[in-house]
Amino acid sequence: MGGDFGTRVVIPAAKKILSKYQDINLILVGDSYIINKQLARHNLASSKRLQVQHASQKVAMHESPVQALRTKKDSSMRVAINLVKSGGAHACVSAGNTGALLATASFVLKTLPGVDRPAIIRTLPTLIPDKNVRMLDLGANVDSSPHQLLQFAVMGRVLAEAVDNIQNPSVRLLNIGEEDIKGNELVKQAAMLFKDNDAIHYVGYIEGDKIYHGTADVIVCDGFVGNIALKVTEGTVNTVLQFVKQAFLQNWLSKVAGLLVKPIFSKIRKKIDPDYYNGASLIGLQGIVIKSHGGASANGFARAIEEAMHEVGKNVPSLIREQVAQLLKQTVE
Amino acid sequence: MGGDFGTRVVIPAAKKILSKYQDINLILVGDSYIINKQLARHNLASSKRLQVQHASQKVAMHESPVQALRTKKDSSMRVAINLVKSGGAHACVSAGNTGALLATASFVLKTLPGVDRPAIIRTLPTLIPDKNVRMLDLGANVDSSPHQLLQFAVMGRVLAEAVDNIQNPSVRLLNIGEEDIKGNELVKQAAMLFKDNDAIHYVGYIEGDKIYHGTADVIVCDGFVGNIALKVTEGTVNTVLQFVKQAFLQNWLSKVAGLLVKPIFSKIRKKIDPDYYNGASLIGLQGIVIKSHGGASANGFARAIEEAMHEVGKNVPSLIREQVAQLLKQTVE
Repeated sequence: MGGDFGTRVVIPAAKKILSKYQDINLILVGDSYIINKQLARHNLASSKRLQVQHASQKVAMHESPVQALRTKKDSSMRVAINLVKSGGAHACVSAGNTGALLATASFVLKTLPGVDRPAIIRTLPTLIPDKNVRMLDLGANVDSSPHQLLQFAVMGRVLAEAVDNIQNPSVRLLNIGEEDIKGNELVKQAAMLFKDNDAIHYVGYIEGDKIYHGTADVIVCDGFVGNIALKVTEGTVNTVLQFVKQAFLQNWLSKVAGLLVKPIFSKIRKKIDPDYYNGASLIGLQGIVIKSHGGASANGFARAIEEAMHEVGKNVPSLIREQVAQLLKQTVE
Repeated sequence: MGGDFGTRVVIPAAKKILSKYQDINLILVGDSYIINKQLARHNLASSKRLQVQHASQKVAMHESPVQALRTKKDSSMRVAINLVKSGGAHACVSAGNTGALLATASFVLKTLPGVDRPAIIRTLPTLIPDKNVRMLDLGANVDSSPHQLLQFAVMGRVLAEAVDNIQNPSVRLLNIGEEDIKGNELVKQAAMLFKDNDAIHYVGYIEGDKIYHGTADVIVCDGFVGNIALKVTEGTVNTVLQFVKQAFLQNWLSKVAGLLVKPIFSKIRKKIDPDYYNGASLIGLQGIVIKSHGGASANGFARAIEEAMHEVGKNVPSLIREQVAQLLKQTVE
């Protein structure tokens, strides 16, 4: 029910996924009246592979997480997460209110043993063809401790290894310089922890302008900084595209030129399309929860479902549980 | 002598400035042999309006600030800042090592009374035509206190008012959300200080994706976050332009299209050209020091000189001294 488009995006995405993968079952959670109406419109009917689970409430996009947790016990989001908890579903995918999703998922599923706090991680493109980077935390936490950053690094490593099939993925810490003396206290202390630890392949600092250079498989930062970095990226891409649009709309000659290069621009848009990389994981929980961007298209939402499928296939929570246990053992020794 | 191009950029920039403004005198500080050779090449000779001041040393771009401060007492950077201190020059403009410039300027000039630490501030473009935004701190400090952020806000306000001629400029705090409860401890505590203070016109939080929307005249943040935000912007612009280039170079048809739209792209490049907005101020010192980007062109370096001229014209340090004194008075009351 969440996101900017609700069922209008989720149902076409479900249709895509059901026809692309024969071995997946989906449960649509929300207002069954609305869902069934939309299903009929898309020539879909509930079946063994597509069930509808009614939920009488809905968390609004700007509702406070605490409010949602207290008063929306039958929200689509809550019911979907309950299904993960009870074993009725392997994963939950939602385009809803991020703060409420995080609070609800943390409350219902709890973090894995040894994990202090869940983190938000997603895949970003790089300049190197077919090479992506996973970055975390993107806003689940502020004022993280160096130990929490180490936990984030281990969780990022698990996703890069298990889901992206990268052997011994390289981990970098986001910083304002590459020399050892650069950075704030958090980053400097985290770097010392990272260097000493065999659970991750730490290769040093990375600056903000190199995030998209493809020199790291996993980039770790505090959620405040990660959220700013991600949103600055979005804002900058939109600003550049806006300037491009303004330039092409200036006069009839530039308008004609704009028409000519349209196919080239669709190619570029695809490269930087957030839909293509849609699906952030709320990682560190005893269950798989994927957050789709609120403005994602049906294709984007389908990507988020695929991310969930990959994480289910590799049983990411149990891999993280193992890796974090090793980490704790190492820290105690 | 600093930056990626040294005299090859500084001297053409000086030539531009001398011919554009009749009331300015420039002192070129550095290796007089190299400078005089370059002057001859550009048909310039030292005159009353263009002097050469010899400096026997040069700070390397990756030299540690402490090292530079201790062992490079006759560096071009140090001699230029000494000239500001002694009254031999109204301002220093350098494309050299940022850390060394900041350390040297702080050591020689000292901060203004009531200012704990200098900050780095610069002008950035926005989507609104002819509207820019000043953002600070961009990396002079890490782990700032809420009171330091308030000092940054006051300094940013002075520049926006005096140099950009904005009446009662609006100030925003960079944060990961717009609601009061969002953010880390630093930002939340700073917001409380900002709200209570008449020295600035505080209008609330701003998220990373809205920096370029033109809804603020001054954006304040800790230097760690500001540096990441600025570098992510640079990295994203370069990544998008790289994708554009790749797309236009794909085949002969797209190459022809690329040639056709070249003039349109130069217009776009101009909009996002860092040269056009070149010249970051090391603000809060008892003297004017402007940092040009190391890779700036002659036009870019000339812009940095113009920023220095504007700040000299308005006597920015004395305005900051007054505003900060009022701030202290208010805080004590």
